Amino acid sequence: MTHSQMILGMQLGNGYGSQPAAWRAPGVDPSNYTDFDAQVRYAQAAERGKFAFLFLPDFLALSGNLDHEAPQLTLEPMLTLAAIARGTQRIGLVATGSTTFNEPYNLARQFKALDVMSHGRAGWNAVTTSDPASAANFGRQIAARPQRYQRAHETIQIAQALWGSWQPDAWLKDAAAGRFADPGKIQPINLGGEHVASQGPLPIPPSEQGQPVIFSAGGGDYGLELAGRYASAVIGAVFTIEDARAQREAIRDAARRAGRNPEEVKFFAGVMPAIGPTKRAALDRRVALGEQTFPARVPYLGSMLGLDLEVAQLDRPLSPAQLAAVRPSPFDPRSPRALEVAREGWTIREVLAHGVIDYHPTPVGPASVTADHLQEWFEAGAADGFWVSIDVYEDGIDTFVDEVVPLLQERGLFHLDYEGPTLRENLGAPAQYGLDPRLTDPAR
Amino acid sequence: MTHSQMILGMQLGNGYGSQPAAWRAPGVDPSNYTDFDAQVRYAQAAERGKFAFLFLPDFLALSGNLDHEAPQLTLEPMLTLAAIARGTQRIGLVATGSTTFNEPYNLARQFKALDVMSHGRAGWNAVTTSDPASAANFGRQIAARPQRYQRAHETIQIAQALWGSWQPDAWLKDAAAGRFADPGKIQPINLGGEHVASQGPLPIPPSEQGQPVIFSAGGGDYGLELAGRYASAVIGAVFTIEDARAQREAIRDAARRAGRNPEEVKFFAGVMPAIGPTKRAALDRRVALGEQTFPARVPYLGSMLGLDLEVAQLDRPLSPAQLAAVRPSPFDPRSPRALEVAREGWTIREVLAHGVIDYHPTPVGPASVTADHLQEWFEAGAADGFWVSIDVYEDGIDTFVDEVVPLLQERGLFHLDYEGPTLRENLGAPAQYGLDPRLTDPAR
Ligand SMILES: Cc1cc2nc3c(=O)[nH]c(=O)nc-3n(C[C@H](O)[C@H](O)[C@H](O)COP(=O)(O)O)c2cc1C
Ligand SMILES: Cc1cc2nc3c(=O)[nH]c(=O)nc-3n(C[C@H](O)[C@H](O)[C@H](O)COP(=O)(O)O)c2cc1C
Repeated sequence: MTHSQMILGMQLGNGYGSQPAAWRAPGVDPSNYTDFDAQVRYAQAAERGKFAFLFLPDFLALSGNLDHEAPQLTLEPMLTLAAIARGTQRIGLVATGSTTFNEPYNLARQFKALDVMSHGRAGWNAVTTSDPASAANFGRQIAARPQRYQRAHETIQIAQALWGSWQPDAWLKDAAAGRFADPGKIQPINLGGEHVASQGPLPIPPSEQGQPVIFSAGGGDYGLELAGRYASAVIGAVFTIEDARAQREAIRDAARRAGRNPEEVKFFAGVMPAIGPTKRAALDRRVALGEQTFPARVPYLGSMLGLDLEVAQLDRPLSPAQLAAVRPSPFDPRSPRALEVAREGWTIREVLAHGVIDYHPTPVGPASVTADHLQEWFEAGAADGFWVSIDVYEDGIDTFVDEVVPLLQERGLFHLDYEGPTLRENLGAPAQYGLDPRLTDPAR
Repeated sequence: MTHSQMILGMQLGNGYGSQPAAWRAPGVDPSNYTDFDAQVRYAQAAERGKFAFLFLPDFLALSGNLDHEAPQLTLEPMLTLAAIARGTQRIGLVATGSTTFNEPYNLARQFKALDVMSHGRAGWNAVTTSDPASAANFGRQIAARPQRYQRAHETIQIAQALWGSWQPDAWLKDAAAGRFADPGKIQPINLGGEHVASQGPLPIPPSEQGQPVIFSAGGGDYGLELAGRYASAVIGAVFTIEDARAQREAIRDAARRAGRNPEEVKFFAGVMPAIGPTKRAALDRRVALGEQTFPARVPYLGSMLGLDLEVAQLDRPLSPAQLAAVRPSPFDPRSPRALEVAREGWTIREVLAHGVIDYHPTPVGPASVTADHLQEWFEAGAADGFWVSIDVYEDGIDTFVDEVVPLLQERGLFHLDYEGPTLRENLGAPAQYGLDPRLTDPAR
């Protein structure tokens, strides 16, 4: 049920790193938000570490407190990955693309072009987009799930059909005979549903991996069905091994229900390591990064623990009375970990520096702590791999690559080199060209 | 009314060249259709020749006779220009983008990202898309002009407003003070019309040229109004100096009506040079390229001349009887030139090799013939510059750069170097950031 080696992907965002204060960390150029050279350098660093892919989340609106924090996303994922495609050779390039706010023809064309440009390294994280601010940028509102997901099914199927609209041997390029292509092997798709339609064909021949790989993110019944039918990889957000195993199993079941082999869908758990030569150094790195943000997080930490916490207590641990009164919130899956750390006697600032309210589990300490975390989760069947959120890209990727990756390799848990030049190979995703013939109801 | 020096742009398409048989010309790799390295090399060659911009036409459907000919367009213009942006320093990057089959937020975001990535070199050729095959790829039909152009006005205005949604000094990047940006200077736009709307802001600060430059292509009353209001450059298709002057004047008038200075809108005439050491060599180049396509063109040439021409006559000139019977078609502006060439006694194959039914005027002969053509048109006030269609990119760009460009420079007709790093500078387009305040009716 588990594979012999884990697969690693790396989250890529705003040019600084996944910690909100990364933009002002020592050694970071605060101009990197608009610097594509920086993104290419990060990608090259990740490629040195044999990461299978870069994962670029995307929303269609500007959010966050720009006064103190950088926007979290790349300026635009497709152009960012185009730049990276030109500066790398092996690493997979996975962009998030909305099925609601794009037309299938445009999505299919751009992802296939990226796939050709990168010689078979593109992936599409297909999301329906559920935030109202994104909808407002299109003069619209977020529709209910049934409509959003119906359109997502139609969009993915049309895109895949367009991807397959040149048969693999259609492009002859026979200069001597003057035959460019066999038009009989380049056919319209004429596929349509309730929301979207396309005639085809797409003007793009197959890439080295045939067509882009589908990713999905998130869950819920609708999301699971989507993942089960189309995804080769699912990007998860999970805080415990139990949660992760349950999500992974749910996805594998969804794949079975769609008539697929569950091994075809890899589940990726998130991780946001805090690495330093010692645990103290790793904590100090995060304490420094949290200088501006931690005070505002104290009340939320309090609510996770069922306590009224005040900023004034930032540099003191919980008192015995507070520890006696804690009631971890059942609404946040991170509460048990927050309590566990608080009970170790750390100050509130240090508790926060443990990443207890970050988006992913945060192993804190020397590289071996992160390696142990990944090994434990992987061996427990919690994930097929991990998507790694690096706190500050500028030095954090190199630290991970130079310190964590060799440990995983020594332990036989991580590949020594890429399996091949395509994302499909490095993900262990089976060949697919055009629609999956096992999907029996193409109109859904 | 004319400027002292002409501006040159270069058409960029399918990786081979603008002649249908370029894909199988000697020295051309027939795989170039999917080769982004080739596109980058072509762009670098054009940049060596100080071309102000690359112009990428785009339609949203596959067309042409793929049996013998390559598709004419790049696989996808935005990703192609992203690749080129990474491999060039000065040349402008102008992609065609449809106002009908894209959402303004997506267009605005990708063009601005390209603009930032290229350090201020992006341009957007805003077209409404009028071919039914493109519409079918979106499950739609082509709407009537009033609707299409209403949506185009709304789309361009929303895009420009989004481009201006970060005030130029909004991005503080003050690491010491911990202030990333001044949120008061990053504002929603809340602009909407009958067809499209967006709330904003866009997550992208200004580029080195502020925001992308607007191009337009084509004419008609609706197209003229659009060009007059927004365009800094209009890409034309004209076959005579008289036509070109009339179109240029019409565009300048449209700019005046929109309250702008006509000097702000440059008109570009097309040219498709056939260059060889001698006229015979230039013709032979085109004869070889036309091997497969000329036979099929004979009947159309006949209809242009009012004659029933047969393929059997391909290697003979018009007979005296035919010459006496000619009646140049008033429906094709290229007929007079076709007749002029036929009267010189060339065989029908050679008449076709003169480019008389190509998309643009074709000066045939040594580089000086092309230089003379450009000089004549420019000095007659027919154009502010030219967009050059190179028959076979692989050697044709270098020939133009090495032979035509120096002649133009010697004659004082063409700049010796780029005016600056941005497209706006090299086009002589005035600064613009956000909406043009002179447009008094933002809802149209
Ligand atoms: C790890 C993870 C990453 C996600 N990344 C994105 C993203 O980049 N863009 C996006 O629009 N939604 C993203 N989502 C949201 C999901 O696609 C989904 O919309 C969300 O789980 C809400 O579910 P719903 O669509 O059923 O309402 C992500 C979700 C998870 C768990
Ligand atoms: C030189 C030139 C280039 C053009 N390039 C494009 C193009 O790349 N894509 C496109 O959709 N239309 C292109 N057009 C078409 C025009 O934008 C316009 O749609 C056409 O002139 C029809 O006019 P209408 O929109 O008023 O029907 C071009 C037109 C000309 C003259």
